[in-house]
Amino acid sequence: MGDLVLTHDMLVIGTHVMSDCAPEDVAWKLVGVNLSDLAAKGAQPIGVLMGYMLGASEWDTRFAAALGDALSHYDTALLGGDTVATPAQSGDTRAFGMTAIGRATHMPVPSRSGARPGDTLWVTGQIGLAMLGYLGETGEAPCNDIAIARYRRPAPRLSEGRALAPHVTAMMDISDGLLLDAQRMAQASGVTITIQSGAVPLPAPIIGNADLPAQAMRWGDDYELLFTLPNGIEPPIDATRIGVVYGMSEHHLLIDGAVPDPMQSLGWEHG
Amino acid sequence: MGDLVLTHDMLVIGTHVMSDCAPEDVAWKLVGVNLSDLAAKGAQPIGVLMGYMLGASEWDTRFAAALGDALSHYDTALLGGDTVATPAQSGDTRAFGMTAIGRATHMPVPSRSGARPGDTLWVTGQIGLAMLGYLGETGEAPCNDIAIARYRRPAPRLSEGRALAPHVTAMMDISDGLLLDAQRMAQASGVTITIQSGAVPLPAPIIGNADLPAQAMRWGDDYELLFTLPNGIEPPIDATRIGVVYGMSEHHLLIDGAVPDPMQSLGWEHG
Repeated sequence: MGDLVLTHDMLVIGTHVMSDCAPEDVAWKLVGVNLSDLAAKGAQPIGVLMGYMLGASEWDTRFAAALGDALSHYDTALLGGDTVATPAQSGDTRAFGMTAIGRATHMPVPSRSGARPGDTLWVTGQIGLAMLGYLGETGEAPCNDIAIARYRRPAPRLSEGRALAPHVTAMMDISDGLLLDAQRMAQASGVTITIQSGAVPLPAPIIGNADLPAQAMRWGDDYELLFTLPNGIEPPIDATRIGVVYGMSEHHLLIDGAVPDPMQSLGWEHG
Repeated sequence: MGDLVLTHDMLVIGTHVMSDCAPEDVAWKLVGVNLSDLAAKGAQPIGVLMGYMLGASEWDTRFAAALGDALSHYDTALLGGDTVATPAQSGDTRAFGMTAIGRATHMPVPSRSGARPGDTLWVTGQIGLAMLGYLGETGEAPCNDIAIARYRRPAPRLSEGRALAPHVTAMMDISDGLLLDAQRMAQASGVTITIQSGAVPLPAPIIGNADLPAQAMRWGDDYELLFTLPNGIEPPIDATRIGVVYGMSEHHLLIDGAVPDPMQSLGWEHG
């Protein structure tokens, strides 16, 4: 397989996107989510294969056009796939699977298991923008076009991932929540990660709110990059330092030095 | 991408397999169907990625064990994937996607578009065995263990595909029916294919029946290999010669020299 990186993500209407989601947004989200996995590996996208459950013909036509736009935007080819009929009793449940293939730009390919005691923890962009977009869509927060765009069409951090790959000790994308994904990185690396909540970069409408900062750290969909660097090394791109890596203690994740509330989920647990 | 071959197939419960299908059979079928695409390219399987919609925990556990058995049987690794929750309103509709990666053993990789006038048309194994298995399961035909096994767990013709790859002008696997797939090969190659129905190798219980031979040629699920050879070349494996390739005429497919009945489907049309 050499320097090829492969990743597969599935998107289910009703689970990952709302049932009335525009087909264009589903296409852009499917591409964005998959290419974000390549970004976290510092890989350059080559192409995708996709599995598609057929729906209404107008929906499918709009999806196909947007899929072409999104793939073209990221200079990525549609290499193959499979279309299948959707059973009548499915209650509009449809699943789309995409496999993305990329070429690593730096070897070894960054993984989530390389964080070492003494490393610093960093994140690109802002945490909670996609959550603000969702709350705007559902009317629970004021509408915010940038946030809604981020929620609907995640922008994979491809160039940042390639710039970071030669420097990081560990890297992953944040799909299920900052805290949950940081805990996964700590578990995979056999270390303890401590996050300073006051350092986490939040969008302005979230800062100062009583509940939203804690929610934002548990909300997925931002698809920012979470990475560790050796102590004293600065990242070659814009990013924010949010924590430190320690040797393994009793817990994998600490927030401001304390164990997270065990009654509160750290993020989006699959299934 | 060099000599890598990638293929993606999706399997939907209720569409491709019966709703009460055993999880073990779903796992073997998913692997068999995907590796059959590699077989038609003369490729050696390396690994798979899969997208999995979660179901009942006992079902999922049995599926996972059988998936491990099937992949191990074909010396193929599980390289990655994604598990997703199934929406409550799905009516038990669940979709599974699999991407298979193989390494070509002969370049150029055989395709369905290389058939040339003067070539001969061949098929491996028997056509209609999976149909007999289905009819046995539904009680419309006597039970036949070999046929039921073929229907439930297609056996990809991997070694035959590798042996054939250096010799064929075109090759594909028969997933949607002999006639439909032969027509697709003819369309892709810009030729006319004529099939001698009397030469098509049928299982004994089908021979002599008034309707079943015509149905068998329109039934998918056999996953045999359909291929063309230059005139005078014999295949290096057991196979049956069933037709001839001509230059393009008004129709892509002829059966015993005649145009197929336009009122009757040639096979399983997706969607």
